[in-house]
Amino acid sequence: MTTKSSYDKNKVILLVYDGLGDRPSMNGKTPLQAANTPYMDEISEEGINGLMDVISPGIVPGSDTAHLSILGYDPYKYYPGRGVFEALGADMELDKGDVAFRANFATVDEKMKVIDRRAGRKGSKELAETLNGLEIEGIKIFLKNTTEHRCAVVMKGENLSRYVSDVDTHEAGGIVKECKPLKEGEDEKKTATITNEFVRMSYEILNEHPVNEERRRRGEPPANIILLRGAGSYEKVLSMKEKFGFSAACIAGASLYKGVAKYIGMDVIPVEGATGKADTNLNNKAETALHALEKHDFVFVHVKGTDNNGHDGDFEGKKEMISRIDKELVARIKDADAYIAITADHSTPVSIKRHSSDPVPVVIKGEGVRKDEVNKFDEVSVASGALGRIRGIDLVPILSDFMGYYTMYGT
Amino acid sequence: MTTKSSYDKNKVILLVYDGLGDRPSMNGKTPLQAANTPYMDEISEEGINGLMDVISPGIVPGSDTAHLSILGYDPYKYYPGRGVFEALGADMELDKGDVAFRANFATVDEKMKVIDRRAGRKGSKELAETLNGLEIEGIKIFLKNTTEHRCAVVMKGENLSRYVSDVDTHEAGGIVKECKPLKEGEDEKKTATITNEFVRMSYEILNEHPVNEERRRRGEPPANIILLRGAGSYEKVLSMKEKFGFSAACIAGASLYKGVAKYIGMDVIPVEGATGKADTNLNNKAETALHALEKHDFVFVHVKGTDNNGHDGDFEGKKEMISRIDKELVARIKDADAYIAITADHSTPVSIKRHSSDPVPVVIKGEGVRKDEVNKFDEVSVASGALGRIRGIDLVPILSDFMGYYTMYGT
Repeated sequence: MTTKSSYDKNKVILLVYDGLGDRPSMNGKTPLQAANTPYMDEISEEGINGLMDVISPGIVPGSDTAHLSILGYDPYKYYPGRGVFEALGADMELDKGDVAFRANFATVDEKMKVIDRRAGRKGSKELAETLNGLEIEGIKIFLKNTTEHRCAVVMKGENLSRYVSDVDTHEAGGIVKECKPLKEGEDEKKTATITNEFVRMSYEILNEHPVNEERRRRGEPPANIILLRGAGSYEKVLSMKEKFGFSAACIAGASLYKGVAKYIGMDVIPVEGATGKADTNLNNKAETALHALEKHDFVFVHVKGTDNNGHDGDFEGKKEMISRIDKELVARIKDADAYIAITADHSTPVSIKRHSSDPVPVVIKGEGVRKDEVNKFDEVSVASGALGRIRGIDLVPILSDFMGYYTMYGT
Repeated sequence: MTTKSSYDKNKVILLVYDGLGDRPSMNGKTPLQAANTPYMDEISEEGINGLMDVISPGIVPGSDTAHLSILGYDPYKYYPGRGVFEALGADMELDKGDVAFRANFATVDEKMKVIDRRAGRKGSKELAETLNGLEIEGIKIFLKNTTEHRCAVVMKGENLSRYVSDVDTHEAGGIVKECKPLKEGEDEKKTATITNEFVRMSYEILNEHPVNEERRRRGEPPANIILLRGAGSYEKVLSMKEKFGFSAACIAGASLYKGVAKYIGMDVIPVEGATGKADTNLNNKAETALHALEKHDFVFVHVKGTDNNGHDGDFEGKKEMISRIDKELVARIKDADAYIAITADHSTPVSIKRHSSDPVPVVIKGEGVRKDEVNKFDEVSVASGALGRIRGIDLVPILSDFMGYYTMYGT
C-alpha cells in the first residue's frame, strides 16, 4: 500500500540553469569551475552534493524531456511532443486530442527553396492573424506569433495524430519538406495532408500580403511561409499538486519552460524583464521567487542564458553568465526560508556546441540535509558528495521527502 | 541464457540495524556519526562502502517492503501485505489464498469509540483463545496473541481478498472503522463483511468476559475488541535457497522480521533474550549468528532498537544503542569466517520521528572486496566509497557473487 502523509511542511526553491553542465576546455576548467561563484559555493558547503543524469547515463536530454524529468514526470511516460509545450507557453488553449506544432515564419522563393528559415528573425502579428482560424477538411487551425520569427500552431478536430514528420528543413538551402505520416494509420495520413495544405495556403496568403510587399521594399526578407515541426498531442496529466501534494510555481522567460510548467499544472508567474536570454533581469527573478514562496510550496526558477552560450561555443560568455547568476540571483535567494536546490537540465559544452549526456551537478541545502565535504559547486567537486549519482526523475521525490510530502511504500 | 555456478563458496553475515540512517541534528552530526563505533569503522576501513536506496531515491520504505528488497525480493512483485508477515512471524500456518491481518487488542466504549487502541499494552492468551477458531459464513478465523497487545489474525476459506480497508482507527478518540472493499469485486465485499462481523463478535464475546471484569476491577483498561489492519494474502514464493542457491537463516527478535524470513524460506533461529527492543540480548545474537554459520551460508541478523529510538526522537538513545551494537554484536562477529555486510532497512531520523527516504550506509568486508579510502561507517563518509549508490534489491546479488552463487547472464 502506498500512503501519503502531510505534516511538518517545508518549501523549496529549485534553480535550473539551462545547459549549465560542461566539459573542461579552457586551462583544464569548465565554465562553472572558472566562474566566480561564492554564493553557490556557500550553498555547496552547507548542503548535500551530487551528480544527476537527467534522463539516464549517456542519453542526451532535450530541453523539454529534461524538464519533465527534473520536475518529477517520467518523460518516457508523459512526453506529449514539443509542440504542446510551445502552444501552452504561448497561452493557447488546448483540449484532449488537439495536435500542436512549433513553427517559424520563414522566407522561401517560388520554388519552395528556403532562403532564410527565420525570415530575418522577424515575425508579424498582422500576418499571424491572417492565418489564424483557417479551416481545412473540418479541422480548425490556430496560429500565434510568439517571439521574433517563432510561432505555435494548434489543430483542433477529430482524428488527428502527432506522428507526422517536420516540414521545416532545419537549415537554409533545402526545399520545404513534405509532411509525412510516421505511422501507418488514417489519422496520421489525414494530419499530414492537412499540414501540407496549411503550409501551401500559408505561402499563398502571405507571399503577396502588403506586409511582405513592404518588407521587400525595405530590403527585408519576406515572412512568406510557415514551417512546422515537433508535432505534439495534448492530453491532460495530473498536476504537481495532484501528483505530489504541493502547490508549485514557475518563473521563466522562455516560452518552452512556461509551457512545460503549464502542462503539469504549475502556476506560471510573469516576471518583468525575464527574456529567456543573456539580458534577462535576474534581480527581478530573485524578487519574484521570494514573493512566490508566500503562496507556493515549490518555486521553480529557470535561467536560459547559460545554454545559449554553450550553443555559441562562448566559454567567456558562459563563465560571465554563471558569475552574474551567482551575484544577482543566488545571493538574493540563498537565505530564503526554504530548501534551496540548484541544478541544470543538461550539459551544453562550449567545446561541442550541443547538448551532451554529461551528468549535471546538483546541490540541496536546508534543514537536516547530510552536509558533506564538498565546498565548491562544479561538475567535478560535487561527484564526491553525499548525494552520489542520482537521476533527474529522483529529484522531486527526494525534495518532496524533505518538504514533508512523502510517498511511503509498505508499512 | 542465465546460468549458475557453484564452487569457491563463501558465507555471509548480514547485519541490518532497523532505522539506522539519520539526518544531522546534534552539533551537525547524525547519531551514527556521534556514536562510538570502533569495530564498524574497522570494517569500513577494510571494506567497500557506499549508500543504498532501499526501494528507490525519494521513496520512503516501510519495514516490510524494505526487508523484502534487502533480502533480494523486489517488493513491487513479492509484497503480500503486512498481515502475512505478522501471521508467519506468530508461527501461524498459512495456505494459498488465506488472508491475514495485523491486529490489536483495544479498549472501546459502548459506542465503539476507541479509548486505548493498545488496551494498556496488555493482551491475554485466554481472551485470544475464546476467539480462536470462530466460523463466519464458512470462513474459519484464527487469532493469536503475540507480544503485549499485538495479535495476528488468519482467515481461511474460499474467495477471500486482501483488498479491504483497516478497521483500526490508528489513533485513540475515533470510532472503530467499518472495513470496506478497496476494489470492486465479490471477494472484496465478502472479506469486508466477514471482517466487520468478526470485529462485532469480538466485542460481544470479550466485553463481558471474566478476564475483562477482573481487569476493570484492577483499574486496567479492558481488552474488549480486536482491531484489524494491514490485510495480506498468502502465496508461496521461491525460497532464498531456490532463488539464489544458498541456505539462509534469520536471527531477529521482533515478529515482523521473522515473518518476512519465513515467507522467503529462511530458517528462523530462536534467540534467548532477543526482544526486538532496546533491552535485547546482543551478546546472544552474536553467539547465535556465529553458531548459525556452521549450518547456513547466509545469516541475517536484525536489530530493532535503533528504529524505536528514531521514532521516539531520542538522539542520545539512538547513539547509545548504536555504540552498544558495536561493542556487543559487531566486535564479536567481525572476524568470523564470512563476508560481513552492515546496513539498514531505512532511515528513521530523530528530527522527524518517521521513516525517511534518505539512503542508508552499507559496507561489505571480506576476501577480494575493493577496499576504498573510507574508514568511518556513517551516512556521509560512505558516500565516497567504491560501492557508490546502489539499491536495496542489488545487495543480495552482489553478496551472492562474493559467495560464489552468482547469476551469469550471457556467455
